[in-house]
Amino acid sequence: MVQPEQAPTWRITEWLNTPEPIDLGAQRGRVVVACAFQMLCPGCVSRAIPQMKAVHELFAKQGVLVVGLHTVFEHHAAMKPVSLRAFLLENQIRFPVGVDMPADDGGPIPQTMQTYRMQGTPTYLLIDRSGRLRQQIVGYVPDLQLGAEISQLVMESVPNEAGSVATPEEVPPSGVRK
Amino acid sequence: MVQPEQAPTWRITEWLNTPEPIDLGAQRGRVVVACAFQMLCPGCVSRAIPQMKAVHELFAKQGVLVVGLHTVFEHHAAMKPVSLRAFLLENQIRFPVGVDMPADDGGPIPQTMQTYRMQGTPTYLLIDRSGRLRQQIVGYVPDLQLGAEISQLVMESVPNEAGSVATPEEVPPSGVRK
Amino acid sequence: MVQPEQAPTWRITEWLNTPEPIDLGAQRGRVVVACAFQMLCPGCVSRAIPQMKAVHELFAKQGVLVVGLHTVFEHHAAMKPVSLRAFLLENQIRFPVGVDMPADDGGPIPQTMQTYRMQGTPTYLLIDRSGRLRQQIVGYVPDLQLGAEISQLVMESVPNEAGSVATPEEVPPSGVRK
Amino acid sequence: MVQPEQAPTWRITEWLNTPEPIDLGAQRGRVVVACAFQMLCPGCVSRAIPQMKAVHELFAKQGVLVVGLHTVFEHHAAMKPVSLRAFLLENQIRFPVGVDMPADDGGPIPQTMQTYRMQGTPTYLLIDRSGRLRQQIVGYVPDLQLGAEISQLVMESVPNEAGSVATPEEVPPSGVRK
Repeated sequence: MVQPEQAPTWRITEWLNTPEPIDLGAQRGRVVVACAFQMLCPGCVSRAIPQMKAVHELFAKQGVLVVGLHTVFEHHAAMKPVSLRAFLLENQIRFPVGVDMPADDGGPIPQTMQTYRMQGTPTYLLIDRSGRLRQQIVGYVPDLQLGAEISQLVMESVPNEAGSVATPEEVPPSGVRK
Repeated sequence: MVQPEQAPTWRITEWLNTPEPIDLGAQRGRVVVACAFQMLCPGCVSRAIPQMKAVHELFAKQGVLVVGLHTVFEHHAAMKPVSLRAFLLENQIRFPVGVDMPADDGGPIPQTMQTYRMQGTPTYLLIDRSGRLRQQIVGYVPDLQLGAEISQLVMESVPNEAGSVATPEEVPPSGVRK
Repeated sequence: MVQPEQAPTWRITEWLNTPEPIDLGAQRGRVVVACAFQMLCPGCVSRAIPQMKAVHELFAKQGVLVVGLHTVFEHHAAMKPVSLRAFLLENQIRFPVGVDMPADDGGPIPQTMQTYRMQGTPTYLLIDRSGRLRQQIVGYVPDLQLGAEISQLVMESVPNEAGSVATPEEVPPSGVRK
Repeated sequence: MVQPEQAPTWRITEWLNTPEPIDLGAQRGRVVVACAFQMLCPGCVSRAIPQMKAVHELFAKQGVLVVGLHTVFEHHAAMKPVSLRAFLLENQIRFPVGVDMPADDGGPIPQTMQTYRMQGTPTYLLIDRSGRLRQQIVGYVPDLQLGAEISQLVMESVPNEAGSVATPEEVPPSGVRK
């Protein structure tokens, strides 16, 4: 297995659904689940967005941060923030969504999408408590697998300042309950 | 049963997916199935649009005209024609779509939506060969029922100029085949 | 198009959900929709049975006769009438179901299934008001298409004794309503 | 939270899909996911069985034991082992299934179902590496939640003979991968 690397910084022009910007570097100790999407991508609308809403509902209470990244790489004029805001309202999306920063050189691929070398939307990013990018998956992930992947990261011990880890006794015995 | 009335004229600013505007009055003799939708209405995207695509695929070869009406009554700035065009492309919608004309008085409800007194989106309009509005249904219509309703209109005889109707022998014996 | 033939007689050992046997020959003037199924065929349980229940609910009030045919051609000991009866109860199937008669020669294919040369289950039979087998379809039929096919048969005129047909005026103007 | 208790012994008359009986007491160190079902229970057939097949496919390679328990409490004559065997074949169920032992007193509720005080089918049992019944859930469990619950048990350390637990470093770093 390749050693997972630190998840690169996100480059965002505007954050919605949050009083202040999300600083990925400040989330150490927390599991972060992000989904890069486009509001006019049919697979995002029909599958990824409902799935992320369910992830938010199930895992936010366990401290998982759920985030959307609006990575527009086509039809740019059609998916401006004014349209995105209506999309979030109509689809009752409550978690923070960041608008990926357009490319410096005028190209179609926005900066965060470029940095992560994403191949399309939706793309899922699973980031562990140490800030490492543990999974990057493009396309559809079955709920059973996604629930398992996230729960695994939730169960992992939190590294403390001295670099040691919590003992299993300190991990809550049962995280996911109805 | 209330006697069905002539379907009122549509008021459209722009037609997409068609080389020339659709004149409802010129469709006499033809069954017309229209769906009023908004590109950011979740029920439209997840249910009505896929259903209308299936209606188009099944019934166009029987001469049925399938039409979308983009009746934006909220989030107007979010659903401009530039966004609608991308939506049609991304969702592979091939049938003609007309943009409902904004209200004269600056109100939110566009003119065709007002004329038909639609209560929301999606709204289905089933118009018979004589131009009469036979069904107006808001919300979800099961496929089995919608297929039956449309087929019924298809099977009805075409009134000729003299006001008489075709005899059953003139009606094609079997329209829907795999 | 091949001229449709009269639907052959069904050979049934036992009828369930009906006070007396269904005589197909006595249904002249009525549209009949039958589905040959096996209670342990996964495609039948997950798709065809729910679809037939919906067909029954939508079309029975228009005079369509909906019938199940239990055509067991494998695992015979597993799908005896005692099991079928529980299956009908648990799945809340209210329409008549006939048990296809085992082969005379001890072979696995029951008699009605043989007569119709069915290739498997589910198989749909659409029989018109004149008793002709208009459609025989194995496998999955989308709801939109099935609704259209049945509605077409419903709309066809009823042949009277003299061989003439009803004029369109005599056909009810609108059969399928919410 | 109530302290979870040891999962009671299962009382089984016959095991299918396994060369020898499953002894629950011998599974210490292993996560066990069991589903009590009836082959004619519609919710079991349409939801629980496909879900358990997916659980088996995803988690067996992580050492999770997936088991079905056929807890017939109604229509006993309709769901004999001869029918169950055909059901397992037709539904391509590969994991072990035990037939719950009929009640001693001739009552309808079989013994394992009684011991666990199950309220109906399907009922899910999640048993941890120490043999404790950590979850008993009747009805539908969303995939996202079920995946999370099982993954949590998988991630928990294995108690060794001396009663101590493995350190986090000994836990595989990432179990669930595509």
